Amino acid sequence: MPDFFEYLSPNVAVSLPAWLDLASVAVGGLTGALVARERRLDPIGFIGLSMLCGLGGGLIRDMAMQSGGVYMLDNPYAIPAAVLIGLVAFLFPGPFARIPNLIEWVDIISVGLFALGGTDKAIVHGLLPISAVLMGTLTGVGGGMLRDVFLGDVPGIFKPSNFYAVCAVAGSAVYYVLVMFLGANKYLAAILLMAVTVGLRRWSLS
Amino acid sequence: MPDFFEYLSPNVAVSLPAWLDLASVAVGGLTGALVARERRLDPIGFIGLSMLCGLGGGLIRDMAMQSGGVYMLDNPYAIPAAVLIGLVAFLFPGPFARIPNLIEWVDIISVGLFALGGTDKAIVHGLLPISAVLMGTLTGVGGGMLRDVFLGDVPGIFKPSNFYAVCAVAGSAVYYVLVMFLGANKYLAAILLMAVTVGLRRWSLS
Amino acid sequence: MPDFFEYLSPNVAVSLPAWLDLASVAVGGLTGALVARERRLDPIGFIGLSMLCGLGGGLIRDMAMQSGGVYMLDNPYAIPAAVLIGLVAFLFPGPFARIPNLIEWVDIISVGLFALGGTDKAIVHGLLPISAVLMGTLTGVGGGMLRDVFLGDVPGIFKPSNFYAVCAVAGSAVYYVLVMFLGANKYLAAILLMAVTVGLRRWSLS
Repeated sequence: MPDFFEYLSPNVAVSLPAWLDLASVAVGGLTGALVARERRLDPIGFIGLSMLCGLGGGLIRDMAMQSGGVYMLDNPYAIPAAVLIGLVAFLFPGPFARIPNLIEWVDIISVGLFALGGTDKAIVHGLLPISAVLMGTLTGVGGGMLRDVFLGDVPGIFKPSNFYAVCAVAGSAVYYVLVMFLGANKYLAAILLMAVTVGLRRWSLS
Repeated sequence: MPDFFEYLSPNVAVSLPAWLDLASVAVGGLTGALVARERRLDPIGFIGLSMLCGLGGGLIRDMAMQSGGVYMLDNPYAIPAAVLIGLVAFLFPGPFARIPNLIEWVDIISVGLFALGGTDKAIVHGLLPISAVLMGTLTGVGGGMLRDVFLGDVPGIFKPSNFYAVCAVAGSAVYYVLVMFLGANKYLAAILLMAVTVGLRRWSLS
Repeated sequence: MPDFFEYLSPNVAVSLPAWLDLASVAVGGLTGALVARERRLDPIGFIGLSMLCGLGGGLIRDMAMQSGGVYMLDNPYAIPAAVLIGLVAFLFPGPFARIPNLIEWVDIISVGLFALGGTDKAIVHGLLPISAVLMGTLTGVGGGMLRDVFLGDVPGIFKPSNFYAVCAVAGSAVYYVLVMFLGANKYLAAILLMAVTVGLRRWSLS
């Protein structure tokens, strides 16, 4: 894809900092743990769902892209973080119960963070624009899709996950255009990706 | 697998033309869009199912083979084609409603085209005969399997997808034997693969 | 991950013998065939489930690890073995009907064998300790998870598969610690992995 390298500004090939990926794992894991709480699962169910939602989207991304390694296997903190989130959410349910609509906020923030990680990895590895947006979207909604399929919430997912997918497409596209075509700083672009993804979702719920 | 290269005639390593892969995406996408129509999904549902069925089988193939790249990410037309099919099928439902049994024809033609793409990629990358037939079969039925799992049609799939799998196995095996053992021209072999796959399916329905 | 190689004793990089992988395929395939029998599926259903359970866990492992090739595609006996098990179980149901609780024994032995194959491949390829245990666990329970998702046994799986996952985590961790930290012989470690995995499961059922 050499014709795209002309758009490359120097900062494009520099990945976002590693703590952002870890933040996705934590927030994604929390969405899983909150669903485990709704279903009154045991601690293993909490940990299993936290791992599925915290690590699943990134694993789908890495298996599909086949470049740049497998994040959850290469990073020594990713798996422990997902396990820890599941455990903490099981042991201390109090704080999570007090925040209203917590699950919806956590869900869409997690979609945004994963979309960010997916789009950025695709940019670093020089994927085509539309492939980068698809990888961002797939990473964004992948963990939730796996969770729904595993829990048998299948018929339900196709409508509500619509919203998530649209939010993730819009956020990923905004990030790609800003970084690759307009030469924007990646942190600024990341903030706008989050604003677009979360904003669209809140707007769709209002 | 050097012992298999003795069968290689000069044309074996030449892939089938790229438009055949694109045709699989289009026909596969159409199977998804027709299911979306049956379920009265919204435009996002049409596009989502068109992408799942048009790109899913090839993605499974590429993730499992781990060689030769990821078609849907490398080809700039694959993702747009799947999106477009979903959109067109949503906006202009008329023509699709007029053809009787359209979904069954489209389904099995899609299985044949994907089986062709899967078997041929496996041949180009020198897989073992039985692995090539399995890759053809998996590519052929993969998109439909994903669709069924995602839509929660799970108990139903195991019986009817039997037929599809058998048709795909037979078509892939015919193609492999013709190209690798009998040195047949790939276009001729492709036509026979389609004839065997579609023919077996029609015969099983009669 | 060079800091881990200091633990490497000479035998660590030598894989377990190939017949152990083939034994996993056979035992895993048998779990699928026994489920096909419970559901009174036709021969294609037997073969399909035998392949899904015999080959699925290893395929997930190889797609996630992205190193060391894809076992079921590279080994000429894996696919035939899974097909054969399905066929034999369909044609000669007698012996399988006579052994009480056969399916539970076969299930957990299969989990142990797959966990062994997954952990050992991860060790050979130098994965981080926690990644190796996760790969062992995922390989151990992967085939059964796929089976449940495909058959629509979805709500049920999250509780009972808990046990399997815990047994697989424990067995994989024991193997990793023995081989990598204590320099134990791989065969001895393999026997202890099987004892821990199967023992925990039997204890949980008593």
